[in-house]
Amino acid sequence: MSEAAEDIEPAIKRGRKLGDARTVVERPTQRYFRHGEAGTLIAKAAAIEPDGLPARLGFGARRVLFGRVLSSHEELEQRLPKWKALAVFSSDVMSSVAYATEASMFTLLAVGTMAFSWLLPISVLIVGLLVLVTFSYRQTIRAYPQGGGSYIVAHANLGTVPGLIAAAALLTDYVLTVSVSVSAGVFNLASAFPLLQDITVPIMIIAILGVMAVNLRGMSESGTIFALPTYIFIGSVILLVGAGLARTAMGQPPHVTGVDAIKVPVESMSLLLLMRAFADGCSAMTGTEAISNGTPAFKPPEWKNAQTTMVAMAAVLGVVFLGISYLAGVSGAVPSEHVSVLAQIGAAVFGSTPLYYILIFSTMGILVLAAQTSFADFPRLASILARDGFMPRRFAYRGERLAFNAGIIVLAVIAILVVVAFRGRVEALIPLYAIGVFTAFTLSQAGMVRHWVTERSEGWRRSAIINGTGAVATGIVAIVFAVAKFALGAWIIILVVPALVVVMLLIRHEYRIAETDLYVRTDTRITAPHRRQRVVVPLTDMRRDAIQALKFGLTMSDDVVAVHVTDDMAHAELLRQRFRAQVEGVELLVLESPYRDLVQPLIRYLEMVAARDPETVTVVLVPERIIGHWWERPLYNQNAHRIRDALTGHPGILVADVPYRRAA
Amino acid sequence: MSEAAEDIEPAIKRGRKLGDARTVVERPTQRYFRHGEAGTLIAKAAAIEPDGLPARLGFGARRVLFGRVLSSHEELEQRLPKWKALAVFSSDVMSSVAYATEASMFTLLAVGTMAFSWLLPISVLIVGLLVLVTFSYRQTIRAYPQGGGSYIVAHANLGTVPGLIAAAALLTDYVLTVSVSVSAGVFNLASAFPLLQDITVPIMIIAILGVMAVNLRGMSESGTIFALPTYIFIGSVILLVGAGLARTAMGQPPHVTGVDAIKVPVESMSLLLLMRAFADGCSAMTGTEAISNGTPAFKPPEWKNAQTTMVAMAAVLGVVFLGISYLAGVSGAVPSEHVSVLAQIGAAVFGSTPLYYILIFSTMGILVLAAQTSFADFPRLASILARDGFMPRRFAYRGERLAFNAGIIVLAVIAILVVVAFRGRVEALIPLYAIGVFTAFTLSQAGMVRHWVTERSEGWRRSAIINGTGAVATGIVAIVFAVAKFALGAWIIILVVPALVVVMLLIRHEYRIAETDLYVRTDTRITAPHRRQRVVVPLTDMRRDAIQALKFGLTMSDDVVAVHVTDDMAHAELLRQRFRAQVEGVELLVLESPYRDLVQPLIRYLEMVAARDPETVTVVLVPERIIGHWWERPLYNQNAHRIRDALTGHPGILVADVPYRRAA
Repeated sequence: MSEAAEDIEPAIKRGRKLGDARTVVERPTQRYFRHGEAGTLIAKAAAIEPDGLPARLGFGARRVLFGRVLSSHEELEQRLPKWKALAVFSSDVMSSVAYATEASMFTLLAVGTMAFSWLLPISVLIVGLLVLVTFSYRQTIRAYPQGGGSYIVAHANLGTVPGLIAAAALLTDYVLTVSVSVSAGVFNLASAFPLLQDITVPIMIIAILGVMAVNLRGMSESGTIFALPTYIFIGSVILLVGAGLARTAMGQPPHVTGVDAIKVPVESMSLLLLMRAFADGCSAMTGTEAISNGTPAFKPPEWKNAQTTMVAMAAVLGVVFLGISYLAGVSGAVPSEHVSVLAQIGAAVFGSTPLYYILIFSTMGILVLAAQTSFADFPRLASILARDGFMPRRFAYRGERLAFNAGIIVLAVIAILVVVAFRGRVEALIPLYAIGVFTAFTLSQAGMVRHWVTERSEGWRRSAIINGTGAVATGIVAIVFAVAKFALGAWIIILVVPALVVVMLLIRHEYRIAETDLYVRTDTRITAPHRRQRVVVPLTDMRRDAIQALKFGLTMSDDVVAVHVTDDMAHAELLRQRFRAQVEGVELLVLESPYRDLVQPLIRYLEMVAARDPETVTVVLVPERIIGHWWERPLYNQNAHRIRDALTGHPGILVADVPYRRAA
Repeated sequence: MSEAAEDIEPAIKRGRKLGDARTVVERPTQRYFRHGEAGTLIAKAAAIEPDGLPARLGFGARRVLFGRVLSSHEELEQRLPKWKALAVFSSDVMSSVAYATEASMFTLLAVGTMAFSWLLPISVLIVGLLVLVTFSYRQTIRAYPQGGGSYIVAHANLGTVPGLIAAAALLTDYVLTVSVSVSAGVFNLASAFPLLQDITVPIMIIAILGVMAVNLRGMSESGTIFALPTYIFIGSVILLVGAGLARTAMGQPPHVTGVDAIKVPVESMSLLLLMRAFADGCSAMTGTEAISNGTPAFKPPEWKNAQTTMVAMAAVLGVVFLGISYLAGVSGAVPSEHVSVLAQIGAAVFGSTPLYYILIFSTMGILVLAAQTSFADFPRLASILARDGFMPRRFAYRGERLAFNAGIIVLAVIAILVVVAFRGRVEALIPLYAIGVFTAFTLSQAGMVRHWVTERSEGWRRSAIINGTGAVATGIVAIVFAVAKFALGAWIIILVVPALVVVMLLIRHEYRIAETDLYVRTDTRITAPHRRQRVVVPLTDMRRDAIQALKFGLTMSDDVVAVHVTDDMAHAELLRQRFRAQVEGVELLVLESPYRDLVQPLIRYLEMVAARDPETVTVVLVPERIIGHWWERPLYNQNAHRIRDALTGHPGILVADVPYRRAA
C-alpha cells in the first residue's frame, strides 16, 4: 500500500498562452500527509481538520479559544523554565501562608491570647517538618525523575494498594484545593463588594471554568498567565516580612490596633489542643508535593531543575511562614471576624500605602490561582494512573494542545459539584482538606524508607532516618487531622478514598480481562483461512441497506441467503415476489415468528445452520441504516445490535455490521 | 437454503442388546422450527426463549407474572365478548357518575341551593348531548370498523393536522384519566382510613403499576379481572336509582339529613355560570369514545357488537346520571366537605344497610379501575399512530402476550409523573381534564359531517345535521372548558397538545426521510457486483479482534492493508516487527499522527485511497471488541464508531464493523 500512496499521476496543465503547457506532478499525499520512512506516512495538521460546516466552525472556535494545535514533537518546547515552574507549582503552597498562621492562632485562642507564645515554637516545628519533607522529596525527585510523586513512590516500594491509597488521597485533595481556594478567594472578594454576596456560587463556578480554559490552552501559556500574580504576592509578603523584621530590629516593632478578637468557646491548654494547632498550621504545607509529581514538565535536566525549584519554593515558604508567625506575635495580631491576620500585619507594617492594597489584592488573586496547582497536577497524576490501567485510558491522552484534557475537565466538573454541594462555604470544606496530602506524604516517605533499606546505596541509613522521621511526623499529623475533624466532615474523605481505591482496582481488573481476551501469542502465524463460507443477510424489507449487504455478501461467497423474520406473512409473500423478480443468486428464507420476537428465532436458525456444517463459516452481514442524530434513536429498533451481540463469539459464526448511509 | 434446512442426517443408534440397532432420523429443525410452505420455517415458542441463566430467569419470571407467550394466531381468541367489553370500556365513563352531578352542583352552589332547580334541565341537556354523541359514534363504528375513533375520523375527513390534534387531545386525556381516577380513588380510601393520608402518593404509584401489570398480561384476562367490580358498581347505582325513584313514586322520597353545604364564594346567576355547570356535568361523558376506538377488540362481527355495547353503555349512563341528578334535587343533597353527593343519596335511600357499604366500596373501586379504559385505549391509539408513522414504531408491536407493551408502559410512567408532579391532588388535576375529550369529540363529529357531505349516501342530510349539531355543541363545551379553566391549569393542555402535534409531525418527517433513503425501485435488478475490492483494517495493536478482521479480509481480497495510526513511533516499530514475523499476505502501513488525533488522519487516508482508484471498492473492516457491560463503556474509546460514522456513505468506501468476543 505504500506503493499506492506513492502512486503519482502526471497531468498536463495548459496555460493561457498558445502552446503553453507543462507537466505537473500531483502528489495526492501532499495536502494531508508527508512521507516518512518506508511504510510510514506522517499526518500534517490539515489532516485532523474535520469536514462539514458545523464541525469546521467548532474546530475554528476551539482554535480561537485554545490556540493552534500542537504536534507531539513540540512537547519539549512546552517544558517549563524554572521561573515559570515556580509560579505554576507554588501558588497552592504559597497561598496557604494567607491562612495557615491564622488557623493555628484560631485554635490557640480557645485558651487565650497568652497561648500565642506557642505560635513561634509550633511554626518552627512546622518549618522543621517542611525542611524534612523538602529533603525527602529532593531525594524522591532524583530517584524518580519521570514524576508521579507519592503514588509512584508508594506504588513502587510498598505495593499497589498503598500506592492507590496515596493516589486517591491526592486526587481528592486536588479537588478540594480547587474548591477551597476558589471559595476562599471569591469569599474575600464578596467581603469587599457586598453586592456580590448573593451570587458567590455562580462566580466560583465561572472562576473554576476560567482556570479550566486556561489549562486547556496548554502548559506554557498557563505558566506565563500565572507567573505575574504569583510573583507579586511572593514579593509583597517577602517585603512585608523584611520590613516588619527591620522595624523590629530597629526597636520600632509594628503594632496592630483597633482589632477585636473573635469569640470562641474557651478550652484549657492540653496536648491535643497543641496538636490541633500544629495540624492547622500544617495546612501551609499542602501543595509541597506538587513539584515532585510534575518533574517531567521541567526543561531538561528535569530532576536538577525540579530540585532547585523545590528548594527555592520551600525556602520562600519557610521564611515567609516563620516571619509572619513571628510578626503576628510581636505585633499583637488576633484572629477577628472581619480582618485577616495577614491584613492586620500588613496594615501595621505598611500603613495605608499602595503596598498594603497590593498585598490584599494579590492575596485574593493567589487564592484563586492556587487552584492552578491542582489543574497542573491532577491531570498529570490521572494520566499516570491511566497509563498503569487504574483509570480510563482517555486520561492518558494529550489533547490538541498537549494538555491532558480529560483530567482537566473532570477536575473542573467535580470541583464545581463540590462547591455547589457545600454552597461555597469555606468553613464547611476545611475539615475535609489536607488529610489527603498528609496521607500521601506518609505513604511516600514510608516508601522511601523501604527504598533505602532495599537499595542500601551510600548514606542509606541517614536517608532512611530522615524519611522515617518524616513519615512518622506526617503520619501523626494525618491521624490528628482525621480524629479531631472526623465528625466535622473528615468522615467523607475516610469513605471516599477507599471507594476510589476499589474503583481503580476494578478498572484494572477490567482492562486485564480485555487484555487476556485479545492476547495474541508472539509465535502465532496468521495466514488466510481456508474454510468455505456462506453468507446470511437478515433483512426486513427490500431496502437499500439490505441490498448493499447482499451485494457485499455476493463478493464473498456463492452461497448467500437472505432471511426475513416476520409475523406478517402477507408482507413476506410480497417480499418473496420482489426477490424472485429482482434479485439474482440469492435465496430468500422466510422465518415466520408467530410470537413476534424478530431476533431470537433468527439466532436459533443461525446456530442450527452453524452446528450442522461446522466446516463452513457462516458470515452474518447485518444491514444497518446509520442514524443521523441522537434524537432519532427512539424511532428505530435496536435489532441490528441485538443480533450482533447475541451471535458474536459463537463458534462458526462471524458477524459484520454493514452500515448504510445515503451518499450525499 | 430451504434445502439446507431440510437436510436430514440419518444416524445409527445402538441399543443395549447385541445387534439392536435402528436408524434414527434427526431433524435439526424439530426443536425450534417446523416447516411451512417452500422456503418458510415457522418458529415454535421454544425459539424465542433466551440462553444463559440470567436471561432464562428473567424469561421465567415474566411467564409467572404475565402468563405464557401467545401466538399471533391466537389473537382472535383474545377478542372480547360484549359483557367483558362493556366492563373494559365503560369503567371510565361509569365512574364519572360518582362526581359529575356533584361538580355541577358545586358550581351552582355559588348562587345558592335554589339554583339546584337548574340541575335537572342541565342533566337532560347533557343526556341529550350523550344521545347525540352516541348516535354519532354508532355511525362512526359502522363506517370505521377497524377502530381509531376520533383520530381516524378526523384524519380521514379533515386532514392530517386535525387528526393529530384529536389524537394528541385524546392521548393527554387518557393520561389524565389515569391520574385523576387513581388519585380520586386513593383519596377516597384515605378519607376512610386516615392512617394512609401521608402515603397517598406511593399508594397511587403502586395502584398505577398494578393496573399496568394487569394490562401487560394481555386483553382477555384484564376483561375478566375488571368485569366483577364494574358490574357491582353498575348494579349498585341502578338499584340506588330504582329504589329512590320507587320511594318517590310511593310518596316517600329519600331525604338527606345532617349534611352542611361547603362554603364557596358567592356569585350571581349568569349565562357563563350555567355554561360552567353544564361543562362540569359533561365530565360524565369522558370515556364515551372508548368503544369506537376499540372496535377491533370485539368478537366478530366487530362493528355490530361494538354498536350494541355502545348503546348499552350510553343507556345505563344516561339513566343513572339523570336518576342521580333527579334524586339529588328531590333528596336535598348538597356538596359538602367530607361526604360526597352520591354517598348522601346512598345513605338517604339505603340507610345503614350493607347495600350502602357496597355502593361506597364499589365507587372507590371503579374510580381506580376507570384507569383501565385508558390502559385499553391509549396503547391502541398509540399503535394506530405508530402504524401511520406518527409515533415510534415500537408502539405498534404487540408483546409476548399480544398486548401493546410500549404504550402500556409509557402511559403508566407518564401518569405516575403527573401524579407526583401534582402530589395526587384531584382538585389541581380537574381543570386539565376533559378538554381533550371534547376537542376530540368536536373534530370527530366535524369529520363525520364532511364524510356525509362527501359521500351523499342515503339519509346523508339527517346524519350530517345530527353530527353537525353534536360538533357545535361539543365544540362550545370545549371552548367553555378552556376559557373558564384557563388560569386554573387548562393552559398546560393548550400548550401540550400543539407540542405533541409538532413532535408527531417531526416523527413522520423523519420516517419519510428514512424511507426515501432506503427506497429500492421495483425494476432494479440486483446482481453480484463486478468491481475489484481492496480491504483496509485499522488496528491499534496485534490483538485478536484485529486478527479476526484481517483473516476475514483475506477471504475477500488479496489486497489487504493494515493501517496503524499512532503518535508513538517506538510502539509502531515493535508492531511492524511482529507483523513481519507473524502475518502473511498483509502489509502494515504506519500513519504517524503527531497531533494525536487517531481517527481523522485515517479518514483522510482512506478518502485519498478511494479517490485515487475509483474502480476499486475500499472495504474498511473495523475490528471492535464487544463490551460486556454498560459500565465498561467509559473505559474504552469510541474510535470504531467514529470511523464508521465518518466513512459510511462515502463514495467508493464500504465499511463493516467486525465485532469480536472471545468464545465462551
